[in-house]
Amino acid sequence: MTDLLIRNLRPMGAAPTDMLIRNGHIDTIASGIEAPGVAVEDAHGAIAVPGLVEAHTHIDKTLMGMGWYENAVGTDLRAMIDNERAERVRLGLDPARQSMRHALALAGNGITHIRSHVDVDTDNGLAAIEGVIETRAALRDVVDIEIVAFPQSGLMIRPGTAELLDKAMELGADLVGGLDPCGIDRDPKGHLDTIFGLADRHGKGIDIHLHEGGDLGAFSMELILERTRALGMKGKVAISHAFCLGMPDWNRTEALLSALADQDVAILTTGAPSREVPAVKRALSAGIRMGAGSDGVLDTWNPWNRPDMLDRARIVALKNNMRSDADLALALAVCSTGGAEVMGVAGHGLTPGCNADLALLPGSTLAEAVATGGPVLLTVKAGKITGRDGKPTREMP
Amino acid sequence: MTDLLIRNLRPMGAAPTDMLIRNGHIDTIASGIEAPGVAVEDAHGAIAVPGLVEAHTHIDKTLMGMGWYENAVGTDLRAMIDNERAERVRLGLDPARQSMRHALALAGNGITHIRSHVDVDTDNGLAAIEGVIETRAALRDVVDIEIVAFPQSGLMIRPGTAELLDKAMELGADLVGGLDPCGIDRDPKGHLDTIFGLADRHGKGIDIHLHEGGDLGAFSMELILERTRALGMKGKVAISHAFCLGMPDWNRTEALLSALADQDVAILTTGAPSREVPAVKRALSAGIRMGAGSDGVLDTWNPWNRPDMLDRARIVALKNNMRSDADLALALAVCSTGGAEVMGVAGHGLTPGCNADLALLPGSTLAEAVATGGPVLLTVKAGKITGRDGKPTREMP
Ligand SMILES: [Zn+2]
Ligand SMILES: [Zn+2]
Repeated sequence: MTDLLIRNLRPMGAAPTDMLIRNGHIDTIASGIEAPGVAVEDAHGAIAVPGLVEAHTHIDKTLMGMGWYENAVGTDLRAMIDNERAERVRLGLDPARQSMRHALALAGNGITHIRSHVDVDTDNGLAAIEGVIETRAALRDVVDIEIVAFPQSGLMIRPGTAELLDKAMELGADLVGGLDPCGIDRDPKGHLDTIFGLADRHGKGIDIHLHEGGDLGAFSMELILERTRALGMKGKVAISHAFCLGMPDWNRTEALLSALADQDVAILTTGAPSREVPAVKRALSAGIRMGAGSDGVLDTWNPWNRPDMLDRARIVALKNNMRSDADLALALAVCSTGGAEVMGVAGHGLTPGCNADLALLPGSTLAEAVATGGPVLLTVKAGKITGRDGKPTREMP
Repeated sequence: MTDLLIRNLRPMGAAPTDMLIRNGHIDTIASGIEAPGVAVEDAHGAIAVPGLVEAHTHIDKTLMGMGWYENAVGTDLRAMIDNERAERVRLGLDPARQSMRHALALAGNGITHIRSHVDVDTDNGLAAIEGVIETRAALRDVVDIEIVAFPQSGLMIRPGTAELLDKAMELGADLVGGLDPCGIDRDPKGHLDTIFGLADRHGKGIDIHLHEGGDLGAFSMELILERTRALGMKGKVAISHAFCLGMPDWNRTEALLSALADQDVAILTTGAPSREVPAVKRALSAGIRMGAGSDGVLDTWNPWNRPDMLDRARIVALKNNMRSDADLALALAVCSTGGAEVMGVAGHGLTPGCNADLALLPGSTLAEAVATGGPVLLTVKAGKITGRDGKPTREMP
């Protein structure tokens, strides 16, 4: 826990002021603070926002620093899954090292909290979970990492996976993951009963990947809601992607949004330009907690994602046709406080008493920061400087 | 016309070689070329591609260098049009200076050819056309600029506009523009008869903005095709955006694509993430010429677009779910040779005899250049270096 005096920052783009951090928390925000003996950082008028939150990614699978990965696998989901499981072995992917690289790249770019899905499968066992747990511990004072034990290759179709998920939770995973109960497992009841059972037994939450579109996704979503109600898991379930909420049928979508809000099921979006996606403003006005993530970065899945939540805020804005300054600020909020709300982070904000987790952004307004992009000027985690000019202060492995 | 020897470049990502440029054209590509007295540039292994082509933008309306524009106007097309026409006056937008800034920013980032729509309306008259014609002349040896005389505020609904378009063509505009004949003008026959009449009389081509979706856009497209056939304008018409080609009805879209191919009507896309868009691979395999553009950059319309065709190639790839290395190279080709084909540029390529118009990109492969982005390392126009490290070599006004 660190003390720091930041001069000349502009909270949320407002007029310049100073911020005194004591013991890792925001102590005072005022002009002309004097704090003898405390280290001083000049923000030169940069915008301050609460730490950015990467709320949906896969830090166990990035190939960052391993050379360009030539992708020839195409866009079939099943083929991409099988390709990756094999490539992990062929490329000698070290989950501890790679998750460290990814997490540090994020810390360098203003991110103070990460929720990462981490693969669990019967080929690679718990190696990825163990690697990311190692990184989580090593970076305890740099960035908070939540681990979702994720049956990427399927659950019911690969016997033994449920037992591995159970072990992953014992090892210290924070949430139980899931994936397209119809599309991948071909057994939605079996899939959802299993992951809800695990979550219930370990007293943990759930974050499930749901790529299924239209009526199929809506059906899976209803099954998720039924189990959330039955087990009293209100507020402990999140759905990632939720493409079905982008379907054109207004009435059907409205009913789903209202049921999600009723059970406080959170939504995480990437703003995927090639798919229908949940409309940010519609979901928020239905009262749904919503965060954003970049999904996998520089992995076998796709080439375009970056460890950069300003870039993601721009993509979410582009996808949602959010153009006005107010809307761009909202897209950024989804990538910061929105993700923190989904992760249940207490004290994420810019008022005295809050955690001193913040990012200093370039630009004259929040909208300009989103539209023009980074690098983020400074990342502060519990008062400690963890990133500067888009680079982590700690050395990359 | 300039001589230049570029050492150690990788054409389209292939093995390193040298390129000798003589009199503004590619003379020889071989290893170890000697050319005494010719200036030498070391590419340090950078990828060379034919000059990037910004084939749909609005260089008369950027606010680049005028401070951040706070957008509060929302997303209604009519409101955005009216807002802009008023803001041009309020902000004192100087079309010559602003188009110079925009064009130079593009030249700094690998672009050698621009097609720009330029506003013509009864409030601002021909001021924008005159300003961009000035820029086109001043930058004749830096970047080729095609001017589309564009009735942004409507044509039939604003009497006097057709006469101004006529004058714009006399002043030296290269193409006649048009805009949503149903949606804006409420008179598709009147609108299209007028612009096709102008094009026919001046012996020029047409590039029409068509945002109309689904069946409405398909109807307007049919009217465009009817006039293209009737006037023998095969190969001289382009449609920008063409969102209706992204409609779900496979048969209807297929019929339109085939009719477009039959009349050699070109399509220009921005890959707009918030809209349905023409599928790049489908349009190309129907035999349609296709280019891309970023649309307006830093103007009153939207905040996110950048003067950067690598960024645009990434957005087109994201929108089209193009993930493999081959697909990313294709997205880049649309932003280079694709645009050149739409503009009818002869000799745009990397073989001896071609114009020495090229861009040197960072990255190990074309796919990495698209995914990771710029800045572009070097822009060469007719053998002359016009951009370096993302900045134009000529001073910005
Ligand atoms: Zn994911
Ligand atoms: Zn346009």
